[in-house]
Amino acid sequence: MGRWEPGARERLVVAAVDLFTEQGYDATTVAQIAERAGVTKSTFFRHFPDKRELLVAGQETLSRLLTEGIAEAPATASPLEAVAAGLERASTAMSPASRELGPRLKAAVAASTELQERDALKNVSLAAAMTTALVARGVPEPTAALASALGVLAFKRGYAEWSEGDRDGEGELAGFILPALDELRTASASLG
Amino acid sequence: MGRWEPGARERLVVAAVDLFTEQGYDATTVAQIAERAGVTKSTFFRHFPDKRELLVAGQETLSRLLTEGIAEAPATASPLEAVAAGLERASTAMSPASRELGPRLKAAVAASTELQERDALKNVSLAAAMTTALVARGVPEPTAALASALGVLAFKRGYAEWSEGDRDGEGELAGFILPALDELRTASASLG
Repeated sequence: MGRWEPGARERLVVAAVDLFTEQGYDATTVAQIAERAGVTKSTFFRHFPDKRELLVAGQETLSRLLTEGIAEAPATASPLEAVAAGLERASTAMSPASRELGPRLKAAVAASTELQERDALKNVSLAAAMTTALVARGVPEPTAALASALGVLAFKRGYAEWSEGDRDGEGELAGFILPALDELRTASASLG
Repeated sequence: MGRWEPGARERLVVAAVDLFTEQGYDATTVAQIAERAGVTKSTFFRHFPDKRELLVAGQETLSRLLTEGIAEAPATASPLEAVAAGLERASTAMSPASRELGPRLKAAVAASTELQERDALKNVSLAAAMTTALVARGVPEPTAALASALGVLAFKRGYAEWSEGDRDGEGELAGFILPALDELRTASASLG
């Protein structure tokens, strides 16, 4: 086996999403993804256990950053301010490459029930990570669960706007997620 | 093939959940489920496309009842009151058999990532159905998405309490879900 190859991971993600979009998720094999990325199958498996995990590879990083941001928010921060701090921290993990992949990823997910299921569980896991971090701050459980639900909604809405908009180079992901969270906070006043 | 067999569907669900719990989801085959239920494989496939769908068979019914309940709530109902009407209607679909299956289903889901993913997507679908029904009432989109998120949380929390509690025969599912929704509504005031 060769030495670790810089850039292979990112090339694999781009190759996979391109193939999923061109020919569908189910019809795409690990061998095809590796070939398109110009690496061996062994290299694929050094980075990802299987093709599905490739699509949610960033989840652990997001989860860790959300948790850290919430834990390190000032003691005086409200539950939603702590969630905002977590979302802001998590946004730093999303590169311009993440933004460009957004619409293609969305198309691949829309075409595959399996990917929709994986994506739904990813959001449940992110919400659970936020809830645990909030409860550790002393936030009561129902409030923590609710604040986390708002956080997941804000992340999804902000990411969609960031990656689907045609406003190239118009700022960081956090600039889309935090206003979405604020909009949801405002909406919570009109639930009745 | 014989005539439609009353009770086969319910026997299949009980047999499947028993087998999932005894030997795990992955190791359980359609043939084993059919045998345990005392029916043929053909009968299984008249009721369910595969073993996974068997676990979420009630989803379409729930979705329809939620939507109807929201649509038929009084015009003066607030978004959360409309969600409460949907949840109350959906609760009528959950029989004592659903309650008894609860803890065994939970164990089977906890042991299988595949089932966790399916379950997560089920909740996303229920939230989407509620959001669509609320938007059709004229509720603005962010408020509708938020009210639906509260509805899903309330359903999950209420169902868990109803099916896991040792308060046998202590009332209907709605008596657990509606207080959970009210608790979340109260919590929304302390998000900050």
